[in-house]
Amino acid sequence: MRMYDLIEKKKHGKRLTRQEIGQMVRGFVEGQIPDYQMSAMLMAIYFRGMDEEETLGLTLEMASSGDTVDLSGIEGIKVDKHSTGGVGDKTTLVIGPLAAALGVKVAKMSGRGLGHTGGTIDKLESIPGLGTAIGRERFFEIVNETGIAVIGQSGNMVPADKKLYALRDVTATVDSIPLIASSIMSKKLAAGSDGIVLDVKTGSGAFMKSLEESVALAKEMVAIGTGAGRRCCAVITDMDVPLGCAIGNSLEVIEAIETLKGHGPEDLAEVCLQLCAHMLYMGGKGDIKACYNMAKEAMADGRGLRTLAAMVKAQGGDDSYILEPERFKKAPFCREVKAGEDGYIAHIDTESCGIASTMLGAGRQKKEDPIDYSAGIRLYKKYGEKVKKGDVIGILYASKEELFDGASKKLLSAYTIDSKAPGDKKLIYARVTKEGVDPIG
Amino acid sequence: MRMYDLIEKKKHGKRLTRQEIGQMVRGFVEGQIPDYQMSAMLMAIYFRGMDEEETLGLTLEMASSGDTVDLSGIEGIKVDKHSTGGVGDKTTLVIGPLAAALGVKVAKMSGRGLGHTGGTIDKLESIPGLGTAIGRERFFEIVNETGIAVIGQSGNMVPADKKLYALRDVTATVDSIPLIASSIMSKKLAAGSDGIVLDVKTGSGAFMKSLEESVALAKEMVAIGTGAGRRCCAVITDMDVPLGCAIGNSLEVIEAIETLKGHGPEDLAEVCLQLCAHMLYMGGKGDIKACYNMAKEAMADGRGLRTLAAMVKAQGGDDSYILEPERFKKAPFCREVKAGEDGYIAHIDTESCGIASTMLGAGRQKKEDPIDYSAGIRLYKKYGEKVKKGDVIGILYASKEELFDGASKKLLSAYTIDSKAPGDKKLIYARVTKEGVDPIG
Repeated sequence: MRMYDLIEKKKHGKRLTRQEIGQMVRGFVEGQIPDYQMSAMLMAIYFRGMDEEETLGLTLEMASSGDTVDLSGIEGIKVDKHSTGGVGDKTTLVIGPLAAALGVKVAKMSGRGLGHTGGTIDKLESIPGLGTAIGRERFFEIVNETGIAVIGQSGNMVPADKKLYALRDVTATVDSIPLIASSIMSKKLAAGSDGIVLDVKTGSGAFMKSLEESVALAKEMVAIGTGAGRRCCAVITDMDVPLGCAIGNSLEVIEAIETLKGHGPEDLAEVCLQLCAHMLYMGGKGDIKACYNMAKEAMADGRGLRTLAAMVKAQGGDDSYILEPERFKKAPFCREVKAGEDGYIAHIDTESCGIASTMLGAGRQKKEDPIDYSAGIRLYKKYGEKVKKGDVIGILYASKEELFDGASKKLLSAYTIDSKAPGDKKLIYARVTKEGVDPIG
Repeated sequence: MRMYDLIEKKKHGKRLTRQEIGQMVRGFVEGQIPDYQMSAMLMAIYFRGMDEEETLGLTLEMASSGDTVDLSGIEGIKVDKHSTGGVGDKTTLVIGPLAAALGVKVAKMSGRGLGHTGGTIDKLESIPGLGTAIGRERFFEIVNETGIAVIGQSGNMVPADKKLYALRDVTATVDSIPLIASSIMSKKLAAGSDGIVLDVKTGSGAFMKSLEESVALAKEMVAIGTGAGRRCCAVITDMDVPLGCAIGNSLEVIEAIETLKGHGPEDLAEVCLQLCAHMLYMGGKGDIKACYNMAKEAMADGRGLRTLAAMVKAQGGDDSYILEPERFKKAPFCREVKAGEDGYIAHIDTESCGIASTMLGAGRQKKEDPIDYSAGIRLYKKYGEKVKKGDVIGILYASKEELFDGASKKLLSAYTIDSKAPGDKKLIYARVTKEGVDPIG
C-alpha cells in the first residue's frame, strides 16, 4: 500500500488498518514517507477523525517506534500521571511523593517547560544538587528504595511523536483529538507504568477550552490506555485560572512543600488529593473514597513530605531544602502589583500569568534559553475574592529590576475585576474510566 | 500573515483574502513556503472548498506567477479551447481549422500525452516535418496568415501550477473543483486568448464521472474566465465511451482529416460542430444556431481542411499528407480483435482503450518515453451496435507483433457485450455560460 492510497482512503473517511498505520508510522520515522505526504494525511485526519481502533493502533505504533522502558525491575504496581499542561501546575511534586508514601511505585519521566507553561524537570532542578539525568539502573534502585524517582527523558523514545509533533506544529494540525491522544499516550505507554492517571485540564487556560472537548479527549486517552492493557483513568480539573498561588520554579517547589505539610492553597491541595486518590485506586489500594482518605492522612502526618525529601536526597539533591524551604535562594528583587479598582476577581487569565512569569525569567521562549529558578509570581488574590483599589494582588520576583514594568502590566492584564461577585467555579469536574464518565465534586 | 495562520484560517472554513492568496502563491513558487505546509493547505481546501472570489484570486495569482502571452500582435478576436481530457479526443485538429476558416483566430498552446490520454502536440508531430517549437514572432505571423497555429508551451509559464500540480499529484489532493478549475484556467488565462471554450468531459472515461460534478467544474471555470474579463463558456460532452473510432497519433490525424472532409464518425463530427459553434459564438460571429450552421458549411465545402493544410505547411509540415492522408506511414503489423459472443455493445471502457493503445506504443508511461506515431487502435464497433461472435470489434496497429497479445486482451476487456440493446446515450449534455446552464441536444 502506497502512502498516496492511505491519504486517499482517509480523505474519503475510510478506516486505516493496523498494518497500514504501522507501515505509515515506520515509513515516516525512517524517512521514506516525506513530510508533505504526512502533513496531507494529518489534515485529512483532522477532518475525518480516527475511530477507537485506529487511534489505539496509531498510539501503539508510535509507542514502539523507538526505545521503550521495561519497569519490571521495580517491584509492585507502577503508576504514572500525566497532566495536559497548565500554569502553576505543581501537582506532580505533591502527589508523586504522597502516592509513593502509600505504596504505589512512581517511576516517572518528565519534561521541561516551554513557552508559558512550566515543566516538572525545571522545577526539580531548582533544588540544589538534584539531578534528573539518571541511568536506568540507578533510576530503578531509587524507585525501589524510596518509592519514587522523577527523571528526564533519555534515549530515543517515541521518535514518531517527536517527528509528527514537529510537523503538526507548523501545519495547523495540532488540535485533533486522535492526534493529541495518540501523542500523549504513546509517550505514557513507552514509559512502561502499569497504571496511568490523566489530569485533563479544562477551561480558558487549558488546551481544551470546553468541558465537552476535555471529556472527549479524556475518553479517547482512557480507551487507548485500557486498550493497551494498562489501568487507566482520567480526572477533569479546572485550568480556567492558575492552580495554587505560585508560578515559577523554586516558588512552586516551596508551594508543593507547603501543601505536603498540609497548609498549601486549598484549590491545589484538593486537586492533589483527588489525583493522588486516583493513583492509589489504579494501584489497587482500595476504592476511591478510601484512597482519598489515605492520601489526606499521608498529607496530614508528613509521610508525603518525608518521601519527597528521600527522593530528593536519592537524586543527589540537598534534602535540607525540603525540610526548611526558607533556605531556597530568594530572587534579589521583588515588586508588588496592586489592584487598580475596587471589586471582585472575576477572572485570572492563566496564559497571561504564564507569560508574565516567563518575562521575569522563570520560563523559556526557546529550548536553549536559560532559566532563573527564583524568578516568578505569587498571586495574593484568587478567583472570587473581594479587593480594594491598592490591594496587593500579586508579587513579582526577578533578578533584574527592569523586567518588572512589562511583567507587572502583563499580570494586571490577566486580572478581570468586576463590581459583582462571580459565580462559584468548580475545581474538579469528572472522572473518566473505561466504564464511563462520573461527576466529581 | 504566516502560512500557518492561513492554513488555520482555511481549516476553519474562513475565506482567504486576495492578498493572502497572493502571498501564498508567491511564497510557494519562490520556495519560502515548504511543500509540507502547502500540502496541508491543499487538503484543507479539499475539505473546505474556496468560494468564487477565492478561486478567481488563486487562478489570477497562479496565471501571473510566470511568463504570460500577449496576443495583441494578432489581429481579431482570439479564441482558445480546452478539453478536460479523454481518449480518442482529436477535436482540436478539427475545430481549430474550422473556426479559423470562419474568421476566429486560434493561437493555441497544447500539451503532450501522458498515461492513457493523448496530447495534441504528439498528434500533430506525427505529420512529417511539422514543428511545434516555434518562437513567439513566427507564431503570431502564422496565426495572422492562416488563422491558426498550435505550438508547445515555451518559457516559464504558470510555474505555480507546475509546482502545485506535482504536489497535488502525490498528496491525493487532485480531485478538488477549485483546485482543478484554477489549474486549468490559470494556463488558459496566461495563454492570452480573448475567448475560451471549455469542453468539459463527463462519464466513466472522464475525470468528472457524474454530470453534476462536470457541471459544477464547468460553472467554476466559466466564473473564473468571465471574472478575469474573458469571454468564456463550457460545453459538457460525453466521455463515457471513446470519441470517434481512432486512438493513436497518426490514426487520429487521419480521422480528423476524414471529419474535415465531412465523412468522419458521427459522434466526433457532432461534438466538433457544437464546440466549433461555441468558438465562433465567443468570437462574435452570430448566435449559436447561426454559428453551428456556419461550421457545418465550412466542413462541407472543405474550408476547414484547407485551413488545416495551410497551418501544417506554415509550421513546416508536409501538407500533402493532409490532402492525401493515405500517405501516412502504416504500422508494419496489425491484428483484428473479435467479439467473443453475440449481443449488443453495452459499454466501452475508455481508460482500458487508452491503456491498450499505450501498450501498443502510441502513448507514454513516463515523460521521456518515445512514441510510435503509427501505433494505435481503430474501433469498428461502437456503443449500442449489435455484434455476432467473431465480428471484428477493433484493429490493433503496432511496430512489434509481440505487443498484440496484451493489448488485445486489454481492448476486449474494455467491451461489455450484453444480450439486450442498451439505452440511448447523449453525446452533448449542456452549455454553461455565466448566465447559467442550458441543455443541448
